Amino acid sequence: MNRRDLLKGSAPMGASLLATAAPAFAQQGSSPPTVLVAYHSVTGNTEKMAQGVAEGARTAGATVNLKRVGNVTADDLVTADAITVGSPVYFANMAGEVKMFLDKMVREVQPDPREPKLRNKVGAAFATGASISNGKETTMLSILQAMLVIQMIVVSGGGAFGASATTGPDSPGIDDKELATARDLGKRVAEIAVVIKRGSAT
Amino acid sequence: MNRRDLLKGSAPMGASLLATAAPAFAQQGSSPPTVLVAYHSVTGNTEKMAQGVAEGARTAGATVNLKRVGNVTADDLVTADAITVGSPVYFANMAGEVKMFLDKMVREVQPDPREPKLRNKVGAAFATGASISNGKETTMLSILQAMLVIQMIVVSGGGAFGASATTGPDSPGIDDKELATARDLGKRVAEIAVVIKRGSAT
Amino acid sequence: MNRRDLLKGSAPMGASLLATAAPAFAQQGSSPPTVLVAYHSVTGNTEKMAQGVAEGARTAGATVNLKRVGNVTADDLVTADAITVGSPVYFANMAGEVKMFLDKMVREVQPDPREPKLRNKVGAAFATGASISNGKETTMLSILQAMLVIQMIVVSGGGAFGASATTGPDSPGIDDKELATARDLGKRVAEIAVVIKRGSAT
Amino acid sequence: MNRRDLLKGSAPMGASLLATAAPAFAQQGSSPPTVLVAYHSVTGNTEKMAQGVAEGARTAGATVNLKRVGNVTADDLVTADAITVGSPVYFANMAGEVKMFLDKMVREVQPDPREPKLRNKVGAAFATGASISNGKETTMLSILQAMLVIQMIVVSGGGAFGASATTGPDSPGIDDKELATARDLGKRVAEIAVVIKRGSAT
Repeated sequence: MNRRDLLKGSAPMGASLLATAAPAFAQQGSSPPTVLVAYHSVTGNTEKMAQGVAEGARTAGATVNLKRVGNVTADDLVTADAITVGSPVYFANMAGEVKMFLDKMVREVQPDPREPKLRNKVGAAFATGASISNGKETTMLSILQAMLVIQMIVVSGGGAFGASATTGPDSPGIDDKELATARDLGKRVAEIAVVIKRGSAT
Repeated sequence: MNRRDLLKGSAPMGASLLATAAPAFAQQGSSPPTVLVAYHSVTGNTEKMAQGVAEGARTAGATVNLKRVGNVTADDLVTADAITVGSPVYFANMAGEVKMFLDKMVREVQPDPREPKLRNKVGAAFATGASISNGKETTMLSILQAMLVIQMIVVSGGGAFGASATTGPDSPGIDDKELATARDLGKRVAEIAVVIKRGSAT
Repeated sequence: MNRRDLLKGSAPMGASLLATAAPAFAQQGSSPPTVLVAYHSVTGNTEKMAQGVAEGARTAGATVNLKRVGNVTADDLVTADAITVGSPVYFANMAGEVKMFLDKMVREVQPDPREPKLRNKVGAAFATGASISNGKETTMLSILQAMLVIQMIVVSGGGAFGASATTGPDSPGIDDKELATARDLGKRVAEIAVVIKRGSAT
Repeated sequence: MNRRDLLKGSAPMGASLLATAAPAFAQQGSSPPTVLVAYHSVTGNTEKMAQGVAEGARTAGATVNLKRVGNVTADDLVTADAITVGSPVYFANMAGEVKMFLDKMVREVQPDPREPKLRNKVGAAFATGASISNGKETTMLSILQAMLVIQMIVVSGGGAFGASATTGPDSPGIDDKELATARDLGKRVAEIAVVIKRGSAT
């Protein structure tokens, strides 16, 4: 299966593209894309998901920059080909810490909205929440909506809107299946970033 | 300015890429992407926006397939490189007719969810509504959310979540500025489709 | 505990209010509120949830009108004190059938938007979907957003945005816990309807 | 027209209820409801809208507590019958400052989620944004979604999801019409709070 087939959708959702994707860089002389995985985590759950996203991106050949939102620099954002943001669910929305990060950093990176330096970077989201249907979807969408505003190219993966995990009493921590959705998201983001990077090269 | 610069975001938002994008097809021997513009319209307003999206996509070199949702076939969907869907705002959501179209056609096109034939096609949305903040944003997002579920690659353009127009008593019909957002959306969708098509070619 | 306490939030979330709520009607000579439970169901899952919502509303003393959306009449809507709408998740949104119902019926009931006959009725939503975080939240919110547009008074219950159930391979059908969220939602809707009905009486 | 009629929806949307609502307190010996208007504002635009909401609530007979989010105390929240929150649009969502306020204060007020002290308080939202369809709807909904999570009773008013204003170059500042939507929202919130307060009294 070549990549064209892949992007035409003939592959089962979630199928590994590693076998074809990784060698492709070498063949074509492209440099691998850089995927920034930025997250906020208090209990360690969102951090585990972030590690899963990072792992998935690496298996697809990407260079990964894994950081807590508080440590992300303007340079991290500008040099990334793809940006994934993860947050615990706080009141059906990204955590205040993640929102403050977005507000501050996007303005620092692109002080003039007419020069959208994050434009056309690939964007994706992941989230952890205490119970099912407690706001994980709206949390991921709050991140994707911010990305659409700044004209990023938005994808899902691992789930309808991104990767997510239920971490409360009924399903404590991150189980293997949830971690697999994180890896799926990372892989998909990296693969799309490869395609866009290659397609953008003159 | 080459396309790499463009995708790195150095261009002003909404800047015309026609000058560089259109010749690129010829130089590289790529076939232009096909953009499906599917819409529902009762008063003609959403139809005008659809024509604007189509026009924008054409100026960026795309082949356009402009159709009312009721006339869209499975083949129209499968052969498109990008799909834009437009709807009037009915109760803060796409019109029932558009929802019925989505429900029916996506299942017809990909009866087995494990074979997502619309995967990785570029997706975008546009909407018209009687007044400001009456649900145009949620209508566009309802379309984009459906596209994320089926793993399309989602972009905005012309506005935060897509192109939109206020058509009620305070601002009847589609004015030039609103039509320009439709053209911007069409152009952006076509340009992203070009990049992804080229990047996907082996 | 009297109702004032209840509404001040001193009760544990989900606590049964039946003991105090039901006698209150008799004491005060109020007629019980009517709760319309409108739903769409193909596999029977959303129907089971609808029955749970109905049961919860009855235990709180309400008169319940349980109907498929296709059978709901304008009179059903106008005479209801509360309206709950349930849908399976189709592409992260209510089913086309439910959207067509909303579009058609709301216009039939209130042809002149300046006479919002559904205004101030209590509204709530429930949903079933094949997997976790596949659009149940956005489906419930699509219903609540429509209710906000027509100035209904919106509440959650049973979950962050309403009652919901995962019905796919990993958790087939409606389990007892999910059914309990449906009952919780019905109870809460009926209780709020009681309060608003009593508070609205001159 | 008595209040029963009002709540049955026979009144034109936005009609003044002052004439009947204000005397009703005296007649029935109820104390007026307290409406907290909490907002974040940098340019003064959201502050003007907050003042409009406050004014509308006062004309409907409410006691108003108008405060910047940074000055709101736990006691302000617990003693309010209704809480309205206003924010400028930052990346299609409430400002980070407002999100930090929500995250911190809700936890301070109800450290044990099983004792939801804000439950059944009336909630509403307002927003200001630089351009049309740039995220005002999603910003208001981000606030309403948080309110639904903590089981508040959510209403719109002044617009589909609350009051809003466009404040950018095309429509600088808050014009009279936008201010009127703020007043409408304040009035509606106060009126619903009156009904719920009266209906909750034993």
